[in-house]
Amino acid sequence: MTEFDLIRRHFTRAAPNAVLGVGDDAAIVRPTLGCDLHVSTDMLVEGRHFFADVSPEALGHKALAVNLSDMAAMGATPRWVTLALALPRLDEAWAAAFARGFFALAAEHGVSVVGGDTTRGPLTLSVTIFGETPHGQALRRDAAQVGDDIWVSGQLGLAAAALQQRLSGSTELLPADCLRKLERPQPRVALGRALLGVAHAALDVSDGFAADLSHILARSGVGAQVWVEALPMHPQLAAERSRWLAAIAAGGDDYELCFTAAPAQAAAVQAAAAHAGVAVHKVGRILAGEGLCLLDASGQLVALERLGYDHFA
Amino acid sequence: MTEFDLIRRHFTRAAPNAVLGVGDDAAIVRPTLGCDLHVSTDMLVEGRHFFADVSPEALGHKALAVNLSDMAAMGATPRWVTLALALPRLDEAWAAAFARGFFALAAEHGVSVVGGDTTRGPLTLSVTIFGETPHGQALRRDAAQVGDDIWVSGQLGLAAAALQQRLSGSTELLPADCLRKLERPQPRVALGRALLGVAHAALDVSDGFAADLSHILARSGVGAQVWVEALPMHPQLAAERSRWLAAIAAGGDDYELCFTAAPAQAAAVQAAAAHAGVAVHKVGRILAGEGLCLLDASGQLVALERLGYDHFA
Repeated sequence: MTEFDLIRRHFTRAAPNAVLGVGDDAAIVRPTLGCDLHVSTDMLVEGRHFFADVSPEALGHKALAVNLSDMAAMGATPRWVTLALALPRLDEAWAAAFARGFFALAAEHGVSVVGGDTTRGPLTLSVTIFGETPHGQALRRDAAQVGDDIWVSGQLGLAAAALQQRLSGSTELLPADCLRKLERPQPRVALGRALLGVAHAALDVSDGFAADLSHILARSGVGAQVWVEALPMHPQLAAERSRWLAAIAAGGDDYELCFTAAPAQAAAVQAAAAHAGVAVHKVGRILAGEGLCLLDASGQLVALERLGYDHFA
Repeated sequence: MTEFDLIRRHFTRAAPNAVLGVGDDAAIVRPTLGCDLHVSTDMLVEGRHFFADVSPEALGHKALAVNLSDMAAMGATPRWVTLALALPRLDEAWAAAFARGFFALAAEHGVSVVGGDTTRGPLTLSVTIFGETPHGQALRRDAAQVGDDIWVSGQLGLAAAALQQRLSGSTELLPADCLRKLERPQPRVALGRALLGVAHAALDVSDGFAADLSHILARSGVGAQVWVEALPMHPQLAAERSRWLAAIAAGGDDYELCFTAAPAQAAAVQAAAAHAGVAVHKVGRILAGEGLCLLDASGQLVALERLGYDHFA
């Protein structure tokens, strides 16, 4: 089997929303009239973003999920994606399972794979995704306004707890949701779209809630207070809140949406969440000034050792 | 210095043709009305696509050049690019030099870097480029017609000769053009654009002339004969033609355009080449049937051990 056979067999599928898919020097797509185009890219490296023994099907799912999550964060409808893969060897079973996970999630979201590259090297995946929003409607990080409520979807800290357990070699029984969240995150695409015209600023929580919210604050030129008690968490983690606080507030790999909206939009936010089938929680407020204050139930400041993940720390 | 500092200092530049550049979950660009969008992605891995001791500035140049070459092959005007980097460590001097090479070529072609990702890992680069052509005008691989002339720009085999010398450790004096071609290929973007409406099929020669031309033949459902004597080569390589034949016909890394055009378009092809400031050479003809025949000066068949490069061979 050659590189070209592998691509043909496992990574070339019909791309119904493209003019020309995989197999030429470049794909050809036709952007929707009246829409802006969104582009985001992510790179995943073995031993850093995933373990060497991860199921290839789960990895295929996650490689696309983290990129769909970036589209969700802008309120964009994902449409096309490219996939570049460095593989240590031509392992057909691995490629087939990876492709199964990747294309199943792509089909679920109506996304076509329109380009790719396969080469030999340490296992590395790079996905670039393209999506669309109506002109000027995107949810941007720089759009938070003083007085906005801060919202978070789903629950935080599950993936970080699973990761922490794996790294420590502990055999403690964590909720099954934790590993599922680490290996098969569900990008909040429907929620992001439903928040167009409702929310102001948004992003997805990937590096850690506190670090990611700080990006909104910095780009919008505002500050915020957040009530740690209000951060949505799994009951089993909530039962040992102080132990899991770092995972919840700064763990990362959540792929939930964090967004701001005017208080008058609270009912519209809840309606959008109901439409998307995901719970949302009000966790804080945008303030004038700068910086992020985390407050405990008694109104005291909570300090975190670090706000989020740094790949080079 | 953190990952974010590195990105901010070296990889965040003004993106004048974007609505929103680096720094949000996704960039926002506004596609040109009446244009198709072209997307292509490439991954470069240390030890496979470049040597560990390559100048980072040359590497920055080449990482973008090979993607610009894919746009050239479609006749597309390159507009935006994303860059994902896995780096073994945060080396500021390395990053600065790499960015210098990358952004200098980007500026030359009016391309904006609108997104990126930096992570820790074995040195790996993944670039995704997007460009535009007027609706339905792109030069595709499947458009060759029986009777077309086959053309090649520039000279073939220079980079492969430089690579072969490096791998063999030989100290033979090769033309300086060879190393320049290997390290700093000049993508034929102006030529590709000038060929819109003139050429039928086109691609860029990256894996080896014979292998790449075979892609055109397979996708167009045609065959071809090529006159080995007519393949454009450097005089110093031509002086030892039989020794360098494999490098010229199947070496790869040329980033020249190979294209087909009706014989009646020969003058228009030459005018396009003159406009783009690059020489083009007629090297063969598209025939009915299938397969590629390489003929020597006496009309005998020339056999190649392999047609091109396979990353996993």
